[in-house]
Amino acid sequence: MNEIPLHYQTISELARQIHSGALSPVALTEHFLARITALNGRLGAFRLVLAERGLAEAHAAEAALRSGRSLGPLHGIPYALKDLFDVAGVATTAGSNLLADNIAAEDAAVVKRLAQAGMVLLGKTVTVQFAFGGVGINHHHGTPHNPWHETPHVPGGSSSGSAVAVAAGLAPMALGTDTGGSVRIPAALCGITGLKTTVGQVSRAGVFPLSYTLDSVGPLTRSVEDAALVYQVIRGRDPADPSTVHVEQDVLAGLRAGVRGLRIAFAESTFWDGADPEVVAAVRACGEVFADLGAHVTSIEFPEAAEAERLNPRGIIGSAEAYAVHRDRIERHFADYDPIVGTRIMAAKQISAADYIRAQWALPDLRARAVAALRDVDALLVPTTMIPAVPVAEADASLDTYVQYNTRYLRNTAIGNGLGLCGLSVPCGFTRNGLPIGLMIYGKPFREDVILRVGYAFQQATDWHRRTPVGIEL
Amino acid sequence: MNEIPLHYQTISELARQIHSGALSPVALTEHFLARITALNGRLGAFRLVLAERGLAEAHAAEAALRSGRSLGPLHGIPYALKDLFDVAGVATTAGSNLLADNIAAEDAAVVKRLAQAGMVLLGKTVTVQFAFGGVGINHHHGTPHNPWHETPHVPGGSSSGSAVAVAAGLAPMALGTDTGGSVRIPAALCGITGLKTTVGQVSRAGVFPLSYTLDSVGPLTRSVEDAALVYQVIRGRDPADPSTVHVEQDVLAGLRAGVRGLRIAFAESTFWDGADPEVVAAVRACGEVFADLGAHVTSIEFPEAAEAERLNPRGIIGSAEAYAVHRDRIERHFADYDPIVGTRIMAAKQISAADYIRAQWALPDLRARAVAALRDVDALLVPTTMIPAVPVAEADASLDTYVQYNTRYLRNTAIGNGLGLCGLSVPCGFTRNGLPIGLMIYGKPFREDVILRVGYAFQQATDWHRRTPVGIEL
Repeated sequence: MNEIPLHYQTISELARQIHSGALSPVALTEHFLARITALNGRLGAFRLVLAERGLAEAHAAEAALRSGRSLGPLHGIPYALKDLFDVAGVATTAGSNLLADNIAAEDAAVVKRLAQAGMVLLGKTVTVQFAFGGVGINHHHGTPHNPWHETPHVPGGSSSGSAVAVAAGLAPMALGTDTGGSVRIPAALCGITGLKTTVGQVSRAGVFPLSYTLDSVGPLTRSVEDAALVYQVIRGRDPADPSTVHVEQDVLAGLRAGVRGLRIAFAESTFWDGADPEVVAAVRACGEVFADLGAHVTSIEFPEAAEAERLNPRGIIGSAEAYAVHRDRIERHFADYDPIVGTRIMAAKQISAADYIRAQWALPDLRARAVAALRDVDALLVPTTMIPAVPVAEADASLDTYVQYNTRYLRNTAIGNGLGLCGLSVPCGFTRNGLPIGLMIYGKPFREDVILRVGYAFQQATDWHRRTPVGIEL
Repeated sequence: MNEIPLHYQTISELARQIHSGALSPVALTEHFLARITALNGRLGAFRLVLAERGLAEAHAAEAALRSGRSLGPLHGIPYALKDLFDVAGVATTAGSNLLADNIAAEDAAVVKRLAQAGMVLLGKTVTVQFAFGGVGINHHHGTPHNPWHETPHVPGGSSSGSAVAVAAGLAPMALGTDTGGSVRIPAALCGITGLKTTVGQVSRAGVFPLSYTLDSVGPLTRSVEDAALVYQVIRGRDPADPSTVHVEQDVLAGLRAGVRGLRIAFAESTFWDGADPEVVAAVRACGEVFADLGAHVTSIEFPEAAEAERLNPRGIIGSAEAYAVHRDRIERHFADYDPIVGTRIMAAKQISAADYIRAQWALPDLRARAVAALRDVDALLVPTTMIPAVPVAEADASLDTYVQYNTRYLRNTAIGNGLGLCGLSVPCGFTRNGLPIGLMIYGKPFREDVILRVGYAFQQATDWHRRTPVGIEL
């Protein structure tokens, strides 16, 4: 383990050293801050570094440890936040200069929970403006650099800076949000692990909204175990977010139970249409890994995926809610929006109440049918994205190319938001060009415990998640 | 009590005689069926008489009583249903010939509950088409005749047939629905008692929808005690209506507790603007009744009422949801809608998703402020409607006059639907022309127990609810 540099170690590896006294939270925080200082100019992952707050939290964490108080496995571990989460005294810009003065009065609910668990905040990461897009491009705050290629390749979005920060070893964990794929897509394109939680599991209080119906909060990490450690702390009922519910779920207890006897199925529907052959090959190969681990690996039709694509809740519900959030601002400041975002939010002005309402009414039935279709299945396997990262210049050639790539990147993930599933993206291979490929493990609503168990078993049997990009060392 | 003819007795009076063996459920049912046969031609309250089902239920109720099984105070009591509630094997027309073939597969959830309580279904009553209107006019199924005037006067809507049936002694109880006032308005205009329940208390499963956000189910009866008896049976969680919640509430235990020490306030806002002086005088006089009973009678400003009127959830949310329900039908069959309903549903086609969503987002805050404003108040007093029944010819002179009267009749009641309150209308006087006036008792959300207690005390001290219309005897 000592061969792995600190910044590429997992939370659990770092935690072991912190709790044994071999690693100081302050030294660890300084290590990451130095790395951010050295590399963020090239990578553009962070919009704002919060060195003062981070060091204060690190010192507090260290003092607590010295006095014998341990706050658990996240104690003293640095992390970063997508710039959609409120941090007291700091602007929540949501990726836009229009919100440069949007100073938060208090930390978002999940930030408070992470602070209580002893985590150390390093700063806020760049996001696609208003989290409205899956490619990862931001023309105002800059597009974070996907560390897996020297030529600018898209990092995936909208939690682009969070993914790049973790992939490049600027933070062991970063929080993101996922409305149509915004945690899973950048996780897949940047070769890390990303957990999309079920709406209702994690509070969105203090998180800039995109779509109340579809927004979810989740961690981007170096491993499934790390995702489980963070998820376990941020989940649970919060009166400030009425969508949250109390769900009994002991995530960590079952994490290492293995997949023997679990029923893991490839979903043979729409997810594979138009997918890159290298992506298909890498994801299909995962079946053997699970079979070797003793799982029952099968295939199911799952036509509900195509139905979710047709119903298009991201396009109808998500966009209509986004316009409703933005109306007063965008009607006055349209020219100040990133065009790839503003034009698409403005288009949603035309959505009628009837179309919105009928999409809302169709959701419960569709979701119930999806759950019924998964009756005999514990987890579904599909590619997180149909294609790996493409050059920024290609995706950003025009608004048309942008929209085309955006649609392609979001397709497989947005189906899960529509169906109300939880989902986990884990690295499962690389293209010949060295670009990461993501396996998406879909689970039933509120069964994050199952997909984390499946993903953990996969990472015990593979080492894709231990690969690190080259050429970004100090 | 024997001086009161059977058809003008309350449920509790009839129940006492049934349980003592002095009154046969079959004889009682035959009495009402004979009365319906004799009078419905003039009154137009029933769209459909279900004599066969009613007699079968009456015989079953009688057999159960003979064998010593009692199902409680509703056992053997006849009732009627607004033609919005499903009855197995019978069309739910919602007041429109377009649904003449809309045969229900099973009884609505509340109908099942009433059957389990031993009630006897007499038939289905005329409703304003699709429950979309407060005046009580239906140009296709006929406008039920308000029994308090010889010249056709509006019965109030949309549960117009239900109110006329109870007021004219064709049934001791009828169920209605209330989205903007459709239980309380006809109760007030027809001189009976009507309870608007909080959304979430009573299942809407098997009830033709107008607005999922605002629809509620409630009884129309001859007394508050009767309303409580019915409400107690129909309320409670129903998995088939996800909006329903479990709320602890023992309605009957506290019913007779009186109002001594309760804080009862006139709401001094918008409710009185433009109100008929006779209505104002009658409702204001109720303050003395409550003061004499030992209540603390005060006044509060309650500006939330005017805010609810401005936000207009009935007009935005209710209408948009109605158009969403009707879209496929009304786009093909517009000419077959009652024009006073069709034109108003069609107008809602223009409502944008953003307007709908923002009205939905505004509701929880406004409702929370209304609850806060009622912190020191147990019940609010206002006129149920600002004016009494007007001649049908006057309200129905043109679409314009219809819309004007509709807006006036709905104003005070729709505020309560918007604010999420429960409400009870009780008779509190008559105009010089002999038309009934309704007192509305508003309560906090999910506190039907309190307003029923207040209304019961009022009826112990007054006899407005014992008055019966003249000229409609056999």
